[in-house]
Amino acid sequence: MGASVAAEGERRLCATVAYDGTDFWGFQIQAEGRTVQGTLEAALATITQEEIRVVAAGRTDSGVHALGQVVGFQTRWRHAIDELHRAWNALLPGDVAVRSLAEVGPGFHPRFDARSRYYRYTVWNRPVRNPLLRRTALWEPRPLDLTAMREAARLLVGEHDFATFGSPPKGTNTVRRVLRAEWHRDGECVYLDIEANAFLYRMARSIVGTLTQVGCGGLRVAQFEAAFRAAERSLAGPTAPAHGLCLMAVHYEGVPG
Amino acid sequence: MGASVAAEGERRLCATVAYDGTDFWGFQIQAEGRTVQGTLEAALATITQEEIRVVAAGRTDSGVHALGQVVGFQTRWRHAIDELHRAWNALLPGDVAVRSLAEVGPGFHPRFDARSRYYRYTVWNRPVRNPLLRRTALWEPRPLDLTAMREAARLLVGEHDFATFGSPPKGTNTVRRVLRAEWHRDGECVYLDIEANAFLYRMARSIVGTLTQVGCGGLRVAQFEAAFRAAERSLAGPTAPAHGLCLMAVHYEGVPG
Repeated sequence: MGASVAAEGERRLCATVAYDGTDFWGFQIQAEGRTVQGTLEAALATITQEEIRVVAAGRTDSGVHALGQVVGFQTRWRHAIDELHRAWNALLPGDVAVRSLAEVGPGFHPRFDARSRYYRYTVWNRPVRNPLLRRTALWEPRPLDLTAMREAARLLVGEHDFATFGSPPKGTNTVRRVLRAEWHRDGECVYLDIEANAFLYRMARSIVGTLTQVGCGGLRVAQFEAAFRAAERSLAGPTAPAHGLCLMAVHYEGVPG
Repeated sequence: MGASVAAEGERRLCATVAYDGTDFWGFQIQAEGRTVQGTLEAALATITQEEIRVVAAGRTDSGVHALGQVVGFQTRWRHAIDELHRAWNALLPGDVAVRSLAEVGPGFHPRFDARSRYYRYTVWNRPVRNPLLRRTALWEPRPLDLTAMREAARLLVGEHDFATFGSPPKGTNTVRRVLRAEWHRDGECVYLDIEANAFLYRMARSIVGTLTQVGCGGLRVAQFEAAFRAAERSLAGPTAPAHGLCLMAVHYEGVPG
């Protein structure tokens, strides 16, 4: 696979997209079920009268949210980009929005050119659940030992085999490079900010589920490290639910941030 | 009206309640429609086999949220309060939760004894809407002049006639005492924190709508002041929508915070 060649008169556009994943069956279009991709493409088709395929930087799972998903596509749109941006947002439903839209070079590919992806996982860490965060945060009523969770998270930083925490796409390996993995506490919420060059399938949620075991005292940091180093999928803790996860940003070469 | 007298063997309990107001027709029970009061009472009836009436500190409108609503009620419950707390939360739907539950003196009344109510109004202040905040924040795409909004908000602090911003319950006046009214910016969100001894009907939302006009340059601070001093309902700006408003806390004599 490579960036497809733009036909004559076509422009390549790149959009930053936000969505509430609750009512989507994930990003990628499927035979059945409402998807982010299908929703974005249907609105584009209405506006442009073209059959447009959008390609995402990361195909988020069902229930996962995004504030900074990046999608690319080709179009014969000849008017101002701002006009397309406004029309697109006007047609999209309330749970998806295009934050920005810009023209990019013909070789740009949102997935292959991405330098890193940054996800945030949010935990509501109180004895009683929070109705206002029930769609966007995991509820963990037990007190969490953030010191232990931070110590374990630090082990992930660097280039490692992450086979314990996920499966690779067919024909690829399980080595990934984690740039940061940091827990923060903000009031009654706890966040994991994790950034990597790329993620294995369910890797972020498997890491969160296993680190939460560390935080609850069910797994010592040394045990976490042993499970990680073993590169053995069966040694991971439970996979944390999708609704706590949000794709915050995708970073590209030469683009600050 | 006064605190009703507790029958023999009855205890008076006080709960702090959080809810996502999106799918409720407000707090107060009605002939039709799902309400917070009705939902709380139905769960209590199932657990206690009593017909219990809950009384709230503030009867929030349809669509308004709460993190710190306070409700009181009487019950013949003879077991531990913690047990009732757990059972109540177990029966309540995901959009309402009881954060705390405690026994109070027989004379306690959540509405009449409240010293002040603190509301927060949240504005998502970016050119493009945020799907993850569409239930809990007003989207205002225009840049807001926070300096002007703060200057106007400061005028509200103190004991004044708030007739411009709301209607009183029958037979009462429109004088209220505002303890603070402060705008904050936190990233891409703007908040109004407003606390008063009591609020007129729609007062918080009417203030937000009018202050937003000040922030957009549609109303000068001097014009805002003149409208406020006139104590004339027709001079207010639009009432801001309910979904941006959240009852954060109710404060009582002798209770810190």
